[in-house]
Amino acid sequence: MSDASILSPKGFRAAGVACGLKSVAGKKDLAILVADQAAGAAAVFTTNQVAAAPVLLSRETIKRGRPRAVVVNSGNANCCTGEQGLADAREMVRLAAEAVGAQPDEMLVCSTGKIGEPMPMDKVAAGIRDAAQALRSDAQAAADFAAAIMTTDTVTKTCCLTDRIGKADVTVAGACKGSGMIAPNMATMLAFITTDAHIGSRALTAALRTAVAGSFNLVSVDSDTSTNDTVLCLANGQAGGAPLAPGTADFDAFAEALEALCAETAKALVRDGEGATKFIEITVEGAATDDDARLVARSIAQSQLCKTAFFGEDPNWGRIACAAGYSGAEFDPSGMSIVLEGLTIFQDGRPTDYAEADAAERMKRREVRVRVLLSEGAGRAAWWTSDLSHDYVSINADYRS
Amino acid sequence: MSDASILSPKGFRAAGVACGLKSVAGKKDLAILVADQAAGAAAVFTTNQVAAAPVLLSRETIKRGRPRAVVVNSGNANCCTGEQGLADAREMVRLAAEAVGAQPDEMLVCSTGKIGEPMPMDKVAAGIRDAAQALRSDAQAAADFAAAIMTTDTVTKTCCLTDRIGKADVTVAGACKGSGMIAPNMATMLAFITTDAHIGSRALTAALRTAVAGSFNLVSVDSDTSTNDTVLCLANGQAGGAPLAPGTADFDAFAEALEALCAETAKALVRDGEGATKFIEITVEGAATDDDARLVARSIAQSQLCKTAFFGEDPNWGRIACAAGYSGAEFDPSGMSIVLEGLTIFQDGRPTDYAEADAAERMKRREVRVRVLLSEGAGRAAWWTSDLSHDYVSINADYRS
Repeated sequence: MSDASILSPKGFRAAGVACGLKSVAGKKDLAILVADQAAGAAAVFTTNQVAAAPVLLSRETIKRGRPRAVVVNSGNANCCTGEQGLADAREMVRLAAEAVGAQPDEMLVCSTGKIGEPMPMDKVAAGIRDAAQALRSDAQAAADFAAAIMTTDTVTKTCCLTDRIGKADVTVAGACKGSGMIAPNMATMLAFITTDAHIGSRALTAALRTAVAGSFNLVSVDSDTSTNDTVLCLANGQAGGAPLAPGTADFDAFAEALEALCAETAKALVRDGEGATKFIEITVEGAATDDDARLVARSIAQSQLCKTAFFGEDPNWGRIACAAGYSGAEFDPSGMSIVLEGLTIFQDGRPTDYAEADAAERMKRREVRVRVLLSEGAGRAAWWTSDLSHDYVSINADYRS
Repeated sequence: MSDASILSPKGFRAAGVACGLKSVAGKKDLAILVADQAAGAAAVFTTNQVAAAPVLLSRETIKRGRPRAVVVNSGNANCCTGEQGLADAREMVRLAAEAVGAQPDEMLVCSTGKIGEPMPMDKVAAGIRDAAQALRSDAQAAADFAAAIMTTDTVTKTCCLTDRIGKADVTVAGACKGSGMIAPNMATMLAFITTDAHIGSRALTAALRTAVAGSFNLVSVDSDTSTNDTVLCLANGQAGGAPLAPGTADFDAFAEALEALCAETAKALVRDGEGATKFIEITVEGAATDDDARLVARSIAQSQLCKTAFFGEDPNWGRIACAAGYSGAEFDPSGMSIVLEGLTIFQDGRPTDYAEADAAERMKRREVRVRVLLSEGAGRAAWWTSDLSHDYVSINADYRS
């Protein structure tokens, strides 16, 4: 593992501290990330009607302000907390902005953790003070930030890539948390992306929306979409070069890099899915449209029967064909084939004479690729999911609200 | 338990025999049900694009013919079996019709079990001969029929009710199978309904479609919809009286009875859901429309996180509120309340000061009723589901395709 982190792009500082929001003493639970100068900011928030106070507030800030920093806490989601929750989120912004020397409309806020409990503001205020003082741009600071945003995650998740774009070396990096409640349209998931690209908020928003559609919105752990999810991208322009403008080759190159970064980050979420023993990639080709392909891929990725079969390492083409059939996409079943880790187990609507031992052996791999081939057109899509294990049930049945 | 069964309506005969389709020797796996005279027939089939051969064939028969009998096998679903599968389904119809003295267009066929395997027609032919000879109208024959249609079911499921409709005592009875892959729009589920009502096919079809929408389409065990599902209703008119015609009070009374019968049958499916330890009823009131209420109820009923919380006996209002929030229905979260077995645990968008021990005690019940109250309008809906247990994972991970 390299030192590549959310602080690899030039001009960002971060910190993560413990302020007592998590039940285990000393566990980091409050983080701050700051761009020393702003270029652009963009965010995509949960589509859940029951949105947490920080989501409601940050949605407004991103529209009106020019954010260059974010304060994040884990352990308490500040959701279903009424007017007091909104007031607390505003106070977190005010305190954090003051502590790092920014304006309140430059500061976003994200929370994740238990819902329905009042935010213990005395602890939060102390944490903000400590984090602001600890802000640095080294690898340890990035690691502290990544640790402080975790909830049921078992590992921190960080991705980074650098690309030559125009005359500048642009770095894009992400840190995210999320393990359960992972589903399209923003799951219990926070992703923070930093870049030194020179790009304004409008162009960055366009690039981020496309990137999210091709990454975070294509993963499922359990099909539940939470109240707090946020993907946030801060750009500070320190890579230099002309501002990236939509319609140019340089913008396209940046958008591609951003989507690649988001895809790696999204896959990291699935790999750390609650109770996951396997990473499953579903690709669908030959559907009438890309939308139809996505319906089929999602239906398989979210089928409890397919997910338990993956856990049981069972090459169960029947459940895959069945989930494709009820996906809502129209296709001729007699033109469907299924390829499992390179082995065609189902062809033109019927099982092949594949060797069971061979198929079973391939199912034992930790990463399993399932290709579904239809005969309708050129529509294609991919989806990433985990298996459904005993540990998933244990984690979620034993967790206490 | 009374002797009430699928043979309680006058004028039906049934049988169930073992012909070697199931791996356990001697387990019943072939059944026949016959109405001695036809009045009306109606059926609702799976919406899965990957429909089994018997579904494709029976769909045509119900459109063209005047069915009064059905041959059913378990152990082999005759699905993904290509042209040979269709030929085998046709041959089953021909053999069964001949054996009971009916025309081929009076005979329907249903299959359930493993998919992708050729139907062993020699065994099936012998089973059809044996079943035709065993046809009787007593309680044992009904029990044999109910046993022969089972797959992973742990109990046979039979319901029956009698109503005074006009001047006739009309009986409606059902036998069904289904335990996994239970989801709206026909799951791996076969339901056979007999009635001695005097009603033609067109009126019966209208009544059955309404009844299915208010029953079988409101249950989830695992949200998977199978390739073979069928609800079939045969009426023979032996209760006497004038033919029941839509738009009359008598028809409405019959339709209500049919829906009540279907609802009881659907609930029996959920109670026997794979690995289910609890029966959960979700009701939603106060949504903008009935459709919105249904979205909310279904979203909660199908949420893996809610279902594992039910298994863990955790009064987790947060997961319920969250699943309501991403259901697709629009509502004001600050007007939402949640009542769990009579205890209001969440009111106007915030948790109440309920006693945790009290809530936990109520969650221990085998049947749990969850009411979600919104403040948008008069829309209401119900949904029935089971919890998600370790046994569900074991049953479906260990099952071999």
